[in-house]
Amino acid sequence: MTEAPGVVVTGVSGRMGQMLVREILAHDKLRLAGALERAGHDWVGRDLGTAMGGAELGVTVSDDALETFAKAQAVIDFTAPAATVEFAGLAAQARAVHVIGTTGMSDEDLQKIHIAARHAVIVRAGNMSLGVNLLTQVTKQVAEALDIDWDIEIIEAHHNRKVDAPSGTALMLGEAAAEGRGVDLDEVSDRGRDGITGARKQGDIGFHAVRGGDVVGEHEVIFAAAGERITLKHIASDRALFARGALRAALWGQDKAPGEYDMLDVLGLKG
Amino acid sequence: MTEAPGVVVTGVSGRMGQMLVREILAHDKLRLAGALERAGHDWVGRDLGTAMGGAELGVTVSDDALETFAKAQAVIDFTAPAATVEFAGLAAQARAVHVIGTTGMSDEDLQKIHIAARHAVIVRAGNMSLGVNLLTQVTKQVAEALDIDWDIEIIEAHHNRKVDAPSGTALMLGEAAAEGRGVDLDEVSDRGRDGITGARKQGDIGFHAVRGGDVVGEHEVIFAAAGERITLKHIASDRALFARGALRAALWGQDKAPGEYDMLDVLGLKG
Amino acid sequence: MTEAPGVVVTGVSGRMGQMLVREILAHDKLRLAGALERAGHDWVGRDLGTAMGGAELGVTVSDDALETFAKAQAVIDFTAPAATVEFAGLAAQARAVHVIGTTGMSDEDLQKIHIAARHAVIVRAGNMSLGVNLLTQVTKQVAEALDIDWDIEIIEAHHNRKVDAPSGTALMLGEAAAEGRGVDLDEVSDRGRDGITGARKQGDIGFHAVRGGDVVGEHEVIFAAAGERITLKHIASDRALFARGALRAALWGQDKAPGEYDMLDVLGLKG
Amino acid sequence: MTEAPGVVVTGVSGRMGQMLVREILAHDKLRLAGALERAGHDWVGRDLGTAMGGAELGVTVSDDALETFAKAQAVIDFTAPAATVEFAGLAAQARAVHVIGTTGMSDEDLQKIHIAARHAVIVRAGNMSLGVNLLTQVTKQVAEALDIDWDIEIIEAHHNRKVDAPSGTALMLGEAAAEGRGVDLDEVSDRGRDGITGARKQGDIGFHAVRGGDVVGEHEVIFAAAGERITLKHIASDRALFARGALRAALWGQDKAPGEYDMLDVLGLKG
Repeated sequence: MTEAPGVVVTGVSGRMGQMLVREILAHDKLRLAGALERAGHDWVGRDLGTAMGGAELGVTVSDDALETFAKAQAVIDFTAPAATVEFAGLAAQARAVHVIGTTGMSDEDLQKIHIAARHAVIVRAGNMSLGVNLLTQVTKQVAEALDIDWDIEIIEAHHNRKVDAPSGTALMLGEAAAEGRGVDLDEVSDRGRDGITGARKQGDIGFHAVRGGDVVGEHEVIFAAAGERITLKHIASDRALFARGALRAALWGQDKAPGEYDMLDVLGLKG
Repeated sequence: MTEAPGVVVTGVSGRMGQMLVREILAHDKLRLAGALERAGHDWVGRDLGTAMGGAELGVTVSDDALETFAKAQAVIDFTAPAATVEFAGLAAQARAVHVIGTTGMSDEDLQKIHIAARHAVIVRAGNMSLGVNLLTQVTKQVAEALDIDWDIEIIEAHHNRKVDAPSGTALMLGEAAAEGRGVDLDEVSDRGRDGITGARKQGDIGFHAVRGGDVVGEHEVIFAAAGERITLKHIASDRALFARGALRAALWGQDKAPGEYDMLDVLGLKG
Repeated sequence: MTEAPGVVVTGVSGRMGQMLVREILAHDKLRLAGALERAGHDWVGRDLGTAMGGAELGVTVSDDALETFAKAQAVIDFTAPAATVEFAGLAAQARAVHVIGTTGMSDEDLQKIHIAARHAVIVRAGNMSLGVNLLTQVTKQVAEALDIDWDIEIIEAHHNRKVDAPSGTALMLGEAAAEGRGVDLDEVSDRGRDGITGARKQGDIGFHAVRGGDVVGEHEVIFAAAGERITLKHIASDRALFARGALRAALWGQDKAPGEYDMLDVLGLKG
Repeated sequence: MTEAPGVVVTGVSGRMGQMLVREILAHDKLRLAGALERAGHDWVGRDLGTAMGGAELGVTVSDDALETFAKAQAVIDFTAPAATVEFAGLAAQARAVHVIGTTGMSDEDLQKIHIAARHAVIVRAGNMSLGVNLLTQVTKQVAEALDIDWDIEIIEAHHNRKVDAPSGTALMLGEAAAEGRGVDLDEVSDRGRDGITGARKQGDIGFHAVRGGDVVGEHEVIFAAAGERITLKHIASDRALFARGALRAALWGQDKAPGEYDMLDVLGLKG
């Protein structure tokens, strides 16, 4: 039996970083190989366990990415675009799988990731939850199978502090439905329905953003026709699931050929 | 044992009129005592059963309201404001319970109904379904019991031909919630949430209008707080239930003192 | 433009037969080519429209299957096993697509259908609703994509007169889930959970049969893991959808090679 | 402005005890006045904050109940029957409101609580969540308002480690429905529906126990009639809400006359 792949967590002092550490420590097929913070952060040089307010872990927080990556088989990275682009090159050098949950990357950033993926396994996804990625794939496929007389509506619910509507994941599901139907979401999107609207326009995709309490995230895609309805729903009840998705990607990538992958590859849902 | 109360249906040739007839014929505690149409309608003078395309019923469609009401213990009326106001006076003369499902009445119309109710039992409601009326009452009460940190959102779903949003019943539920909380719905209503909205404003009541397929009517009131949620939901799957609500009102009114009542009285839900 | 394919309805006097006639008359790509009843039925020889209690349709109800099928491009058949086996041979002779919704067929019956399908297009399915068939396919696929730590539970709801539990469609969904997981449903099925059950056994598939009111049919497959859940749900609100599924199959079969197909072929969902 | 009422937490080292401490510290109208553990526990004599693995709180864990209660206006107690009975007497002496979440008390224990309540405010409830208590009240009331032709079904969902079915809260809701209807739950309870059951027996109350993932607790009461349905649902997503219910009870009890109360009193839901 071979040793469990070692994982480095970048941005380890953040909320997502600490959650990743806890999930890796609890995982039976991965081990924690290192922890990274930016130079100058007060966790650098300290034992990670102590810095997190618990018992010693025997892992010192480092600010030297290349040295840290060299000891690992995977890097999990939910930081910011500039750091992530740099880490992609270093992870490739270290032959470590790079799992990227960072959002907000420009086309130029993505181009650099693309180049790094020539020599390395990179898994990148806007939402690391297995369930949401699977739902996206299923949504596309169901939209493809059904005629245009099945009206599509998407309802999402989030906590009352969320500032934008609809959620990025709701839009991702809408894109998947539009793609399945062979249309452009921008041309069929119906948001904020209110007042004297007239009858529903066939082919539209409606969006509804429920806000209340501390709901982590719920997404429901409704296909409604005469006499029947299909609904596909995802309920996230724990933010840790985004960390767990990243761990699965790290493990999956261990024996893959260099290239750029997403969660649908990890789930085996492509083509 | 006394004879079952006799019921007259006004506007009998319409979709709602015919549905009322079928429900009365199937009811074990009410009997059909007469059928009314406006003077000049081609059903007048014909046997009602034949006119409806079935077997003879032995009831001739009449255009003489007073004569028809005189033989009945109740009049069920889903027509138009002008006719309903006239019928209210004639039903009072005939000492028949007047069940009114007519909508769109002006303040002046309502004043006339009010006067007629001095000498007669009148039951009037915008939605005759027992379930929706009960849900309205419960919504008010739950809103009263809960603090303002329970965010209220209302989701309704209707068929794709509906031209207005949100539904009248959704607004009725919103009014009930606002009343329970002691606020004015107009000042807290949040409709068509979309874009960069900022965090949810405490105390707001959100509305969402889902449209698709041939959904008869579904209404859900969500109360969401930190760590828990209550949802109160009504699903109408058959338009006949509006007729059945009216029949229940007709039966309930038989032994009541003159006055103006609504479905909450019929259900025994008033405080 | 070619003429719309003509359809014959067998067992035309029954509830399903009449519903099929109404749906064909309303369809813009199919026309009614004939109506069949068993010899001796009092509708035979009468105009179908009149027999159904409406206006004349110009289609006479016949008891001669071969003659009637000869004028048609499709036969839709929700009758009984013995009749269906006979019709399969006659439809093949007439080169008409045979859409079979008949249930309760023995292995011997199925073998005869299989033989007839050498020379004819036959579409056969236990549930003709598009939505349920699509949900079955999706259920299998989602079960395949997810690990065994996603607990599967199936909830179905039907009217209060239903005598068996769980529904055949719920079991069909359970079979699909088990197949996706590569297990035998009989070995993992958990029905009627009650009392001191101990912790849930990993890999089990639970079933729940809700009964109440006049619910047409609702099926929900839940996949629950730590921190997230996926639910796939189908709501049937009108029995006519089973007729509409059959019409779609009749149309789809027009240009296909001889063989035995099911609704997944019609939907283009086979892998 | 008067000082915020001080609260003592008993059994402070337990999971519920620590959760209560965190909720009190975050509360703007209550303050932490003391922390109790049984004699001999290694937290006794230590600073509570340090013992909990965080910063100092300036509150020393004590094993002297009377002394600790004397400094407080409320005692929140989720311990065991024997301790709770003793605390009831001591809290009464200290004139502190005693909020009891302890379960499994015998009739004899309850009798002692009853006696203590002659001189003190005691609030006791099996489920401290506001939402569930409110739902119970509403369930009773809706069952009272509706005829027996509304079929009642209760669905609950919990994590896959739960060993009994249905949940105690589901049974509490069933009791409320039965009480509303004036029947005995034992005589109408229908659990574990499976196989050839025959048509649903009118008046029965059905139970369904869904188990999967790490669901905290969900309860749904369905009232289904011909053509319509009402569903009342509660979703608990955070165990902390049981602590928050207790805090509300502690605050509510401050100005009440001696007596035994439950969460329905706290919510102002008693008729």
